[in-house]
Amino acid sequence: MTGFFKERTPVNQARKIFLNAFNSIENTEQVSIDECSGRILSDSVTANRNVPHYRRAAMDGYAVRSSDTVGASPDNPIMLQIDDEEVVEGTCVRVHTGSSIPDGADAVVMVEDTTPVGDMVEILTHVHPNKHVGIIGEDIEKNDTVFTDGHMLRPCDLAVLASLGINNVTVYKKPHVSVIPTGNEVVPRTSSSQLQPGKVVETNGLMTAKYVEKWGGLPEHCDIVSDDPELIISAIQSQLESDIIILCGGTSVGERDHVPDVVKSLGNVLVHGVSMSPGKPIALGMIDNVPVVCLPGYPVAAFIGLFMFARPALRKIGHIPDLPDATVKAELSDKIPSKEGYMTFSRVVVDFGSSTAHPVMTSGAGVLSSVAKSNGLVIVPENIEGYEKGEKVDIFLIE
Amino acid sequence: MTGFFKERTPVNQARKIFLNAFNSIENTEQVSIDECSGRILSDSVTANRNVPHYRRAAMDGYAVRSSDTVGASPDNPIMLQIDDEEVVEGTCVRVHTGSSIPDGADAVVMVEDTTPVGDMVEILTHVHPNKHVGIIGEDIEKNDTVFTDGHMLRPCDLAVLASLGINNVTVYKKPHVSVIPTGNEVVPRTSSSQLQPGKVVETNGLMTAKYVEKWGGLPEHCDIVSDDPELIISAIQSQLESDIIILCGGTSVGERDHVPDVVKSLGNVLVHGVSMSPGKPIALGMIDNVPVVCLPGYPVAAFIGLFMFARPALRKIGHIPDLPDATVKAELSDKIPSKEGYMTFSRVVVDFGSSTAHPVMTSGAGVLSSVAKSNGLVIVPENIEGYEKGEKVDIFLIE
Repeated sequence: MTGFFKERTPVNQARKIFLNAFNSIENTEQVSIDECSGRILSDSVTANRNVPHYRRAAMDGYAVRSSDTVGASPDNPIMLQIDDEEVVEGTCVRVHTGSSIPDGADAVVMVEDTTPVGDMVEILTHVHPNKHVGIIGEDIEKNDTVFTDGHMLRPCDLAVLASLGINNVTVYKKPHVSVIPTGNEVVPRTSSSQLQPGKVVETNGLMTAKYVEKWGGLPEHCDIVSDDPELIISAIQSQLESDIIILCGGTSVGERDHVPDVVKSLGNVLVHGVSMSPGKPIALGMIDNVPVVCLPGYPVAAFIGLFMFARPALRKIGHIPDLPDATVKAELSDKIPSKEGYMTFSRVVVDFGSSTAHPVMTSGAGVLSSVAKSNGLVIVPENIEGYEKGEKVDIFLIE
Repeated sequence: MTGFFKERTPVNQARKIFLNAFNSIENTEQVSIDECSGRILSDSVTANRNVPHYRRAAMDGYAVRSSDTVGASPDNPIMLQIDDEEVVEGTCVRVHTGSSIPDGADAVVMVEDTTPVGDMVEILTHVHPNKHVGIIGEDIEKNDTVFTDGHMLRPCDLAVLASLGINNVTVYKKPHVSVIPTGNEVVPRTSSSQLQPGKVVETNGLMTAKYVEKWGGLPEHCDIVSDDPELIISAIQSQLESDIIILCGGTSVGERDHVPDVVKSLGNVLVHGVSMSPGKPIALGMIDNVPVVCLPGYPVAAFIGLFMFARPALRKIGHIPDLPDATVKAELSDKIPSKEGYMTFSRVVVDFGSSTAHPVMTSGAGVLSSVAKSNGLVIVPENIEGYEKGEKVDIFLIE
């Protein structure tokens, strides 16, 4: 097909339609806790023991029978015999933070409230039962649910797992994402030293694969396919075991743009044409229950499309929590124009010291160096006509 | 030494003193652009060619001599002969977005402004020179500085490097971080199934190593050292080739807390005792130009200490940009008490839907499960007496 886009779907609507069209994966695998940082639990984790599993001294001092300390004060010290193991009436045992409280004792007197006298010690304060004693299960009780299904494991969580003696966990498999670059003009990086006029190095697939990896997917960076419907069909069919397919290029409405038609012939195109700038030619579809993201060949449009559609799809399919992005507030040093009716993405350089954002002026969606120069994105919603110089806006930091 | 802390340094001052005591590393290595996401450039990158390296069609259409289109309009179409390669007076060549503009042509007429008639085409609009032509170097000019020293490479940057034919870059080596767990009570994970009373599994070192890895360092998780000054000295001395040493445990002022004294005997203790809760017993020092972070054994105190001191040290030493953390604003569902004169770190569970933060009530710094249950931290500054229920506060998301 050649011509104009008949329709443009608003960004949020397009994303909703797309995300509703597929389910999360259910395949799981066992991984060691040494390797599970960033992975998603597919089962809840239950404590198989108490932490601590013993009565724990919470302070350096002496484990005592609290009843032996009744009436003790600096003016009325009570003398106890220091023992090594067991506490009985009139004796105590030296303990350190984390030590086990010996049998017979029910409290700890802090070392600051004592005066050692040979193998005896003067107790200078009265302690109640369980004073400075961490009870069994104080941190985690046996049979407690420690983490629920869908929790993303952070390094601090690994420590909790280790404290429970858990060395392996069951997590969702990382989504397998096939990245298929297309385009007659696209050549592999290996031949980049003899680049002919009209040829460009394959970079969108590389960028896509590296973001997929960063976001928790397993990318497969496929060979370049030229603008030939039959070849695109074969390339897609060979990747239908994947969890997501991302095609780069050929999504517009020109003579050489076959990707959306190919997706339609193999499955469904849910959205073609999105009210975003850059990124209008994005197409989203489904083939045999595999979500397909068709990114434009223009690098900046591909970049924005990745964040707006590929990342949420990867998160949904992989049960990965959709955490907020890092944002900062900054004052615009210049106005940001927007395209009426389009969600507009403007690249900015944020000066964190002065909280000022400088819009990066560019000539269009082809100029990836505008992203390289930027550290942030300003998103102008569809219904707003740009931002004025001096406005304070939210900046999404480019990861 | 046994007793109270004589001094407490405010958190920001402690960090400043520490970070001023050492320099960044200068060791570099070459890495492939396939492996350099997240790495820090040690040299600026200069474009060794123009991007595009040819005059590029910015639209699908016909490459023409602009002078041939003077006066063209829908009412006054101008007929041109379609040629295959070269444009001379009266001819044009079909081009696609990204195609090379053939010799002789200086503009592109969009396909929408043409009507094909056999092997001829009617031009329906007048175009100026360079209309819809991307000039050579429009994206990146040869000899332009594309990235400067210290830039952290993101996936989008790899695409820019690839477009320049750059396949390797010089980056700073990842800082080597030795993590030394200490404590008589600490046992390795492998023996966790037969855990005696008074023994705890080594978890702080595991957590530390995994955060170091996440933050761009190369952790070396060393063997557990018992609370014996001579053994701690040997353990530190064997790691002095490292860029940072992090010791876990033994930093307080109890009988078994030897770590700060050991650091003092081998070098300098810059700070011992910080106005933070949890985390007061943190010590920071230098041994032979190697920064040393001494974290308390209490897991939550260690966790907070990692974020407040180990991460900034790692970033400084590794030239890693100190980017802001992801934060969200949320309303407190309950008050957060704070310790007067201490920067207080309170764990919260943020409900993103309602933007509400629920403080996680805990009995202290020993309870790592309080971190496991939380997804955010509220930081109460030294000079503020806690936050009230209903206050809107900044929440740092726990990564």
